[in-house]
Amino acid sequence: MAVRVVGFDGDDTLWHSETRFHMTQAEYRELLHRHVPDAEVDTRLAETEMKNLAIYGYGVKSFTLSMLETAIDLTEARIPASDLAVILGWGKRMLMEPTELLNHVEQTLKQIAGRYDLLLITKGDIFDQESKLARSGLGDLFLGVEIVSEKNSDSYAGIFRRRGIDPAEFVMVGNSLRSDVVPVVGLGGYAVHIPYSVTWHHEHVPEDELPRQGWRRIAAIGELPAVLEAL
Amino acid sequence: MAVRVVGFDGDDTLWHSETRFHMTQAEYRELLHRHVPDAEVDTRLAETEMKNLAIYGYGVKSFTLSMLETAIDLTEARIPASDLAVILGWGKRMLMEPTELLNHVEQTLKQIAGRYDLLLITKGDIFDQESKLARSGLGDLFLGVEIVSEKNSDSYAGIFRRRGIDPAEFVMVGNSLRSDVVPVVGLGGYAVHIPYSVTWHHEHVPEDELPRQGWRRIAAIGELPAVLEAL
Repeated sequence: MAVRVVGFDGDDTLWHSETRFHMTQAEYRELLHRHVPDAEVDTRLAETEMKNLAIYGYGVKSFTLSMLETAIDLTEARIPASDLAVILGWGKRMLMEPTELLNHVEQTLKQIAGRYDLLLITKGDIFDQESKLARSGLGDLFLGVEIVSEKNSDSYAGIFRRRGIDPAEFVMVGNSLRSDVVPVVGLGGYAVHIPYSVTWHHEHVPEDELPRQGWRRIAAIGELPAVLEAL
Repeated sequence: MAVRVVGFDGDDTLWHSETRFHMTQAEYRELLHRHVPDAEVDTRLAETEMKNLAIYGYGVKSFTLSMLETAIDLTEARIPASDLAVILGWGKRMLMEPTELLNHVEQTLKQIAGRYDLLLITKGDIFDQESKLARSGLGDLFLGVEIVSEKNSDSYAGIFRRRGIDPAEFVMVGNSLRSDVVPVVGLGGYAVHIPYSVTWHHEHVPEDELPRQGWRRIAAIGELPAVLEAL
């Protein structure tokens, strides 16, 4: 395989994301337990998020709206508006935090940027993602950025078509089996899976639905250059 | 000029958008006046929206979050959570409403789709915009969709580069002087301005900052085919 284009997921592949949701959610749990000590906050919030996914899509703003809705539901509207203002503030804080890169991301990307065309392929909120990329300092290393509402066969096929990419020369790198590995391998591309310590429940894929070949797993992004060389 | 590609703005050019914000805002004003009869609701909401634009970007979710924030601020957190739940519901309603096309949009696009490559170029929330396009029934008429966080020289130049478009063969059609006309004309493309009855204050451009040529104004999209022919 002659690799020409390498696609990178952003959240939890290049920069930390999920840990921030978890940290906010811990504060949220504590706040709600002051009003409803026995509430199963995480379960209820996850249910609200899944129910709202088709209306709101992914991202911090969607998460904030679902936190507010769950807080009102769980307290039967007894929560004071001042506490809801605190939740609104958490959403803003998440959107404004500096982009915190994972270890070895910068040197790895710099190492391979001259050799392959790099694309950032990420889902979520366009405004938030562009803002994170800008704050990451990595913008100049990417030939292009593709922000899609959902990472599936159709969206990858669209990117390949628009950019004249042959899947046989494409490698996708990311932390999600569901979004970064399965659809790319299905289209004839190669995928490199780098698990993140915390992965959102929605991203899990049963082992028997995984492709048998066309991808491999590495422990950290520092191993990537050698993997690409060997392909 | 030999027109090859025609770009269309979505909101308030192909389908109604701003009127829906206005309708929701009228209900919002009424709800807040029950708590603070003298509050300048529209002014305060506009201030909150402008302040939040750099954090939230455009779109219904951003609008909903700004409505909630303004409601809590204006009532000094005395508003009950049940009323905030009503505001959350308005946001969802806006996101789920059927896409309502402007008059003559469908027949005009069908008339010119065989002749030019049509692109939808819109700003806002990617999830919301894709959902609106899907519900519009117009998806198949467009060769591609570009959703950008802001419509300016850089974002148009990026689209031209990615898609191999020469600005001299490009016409942009939209209701915003600021987003659809000024940057495109500045890059050497042509623009057709179709004013919408309600235009968001943020979109106004002083007359003396408008380009002197390279664009024209029509009253309705039905006039577009003849304009393109004549270019």
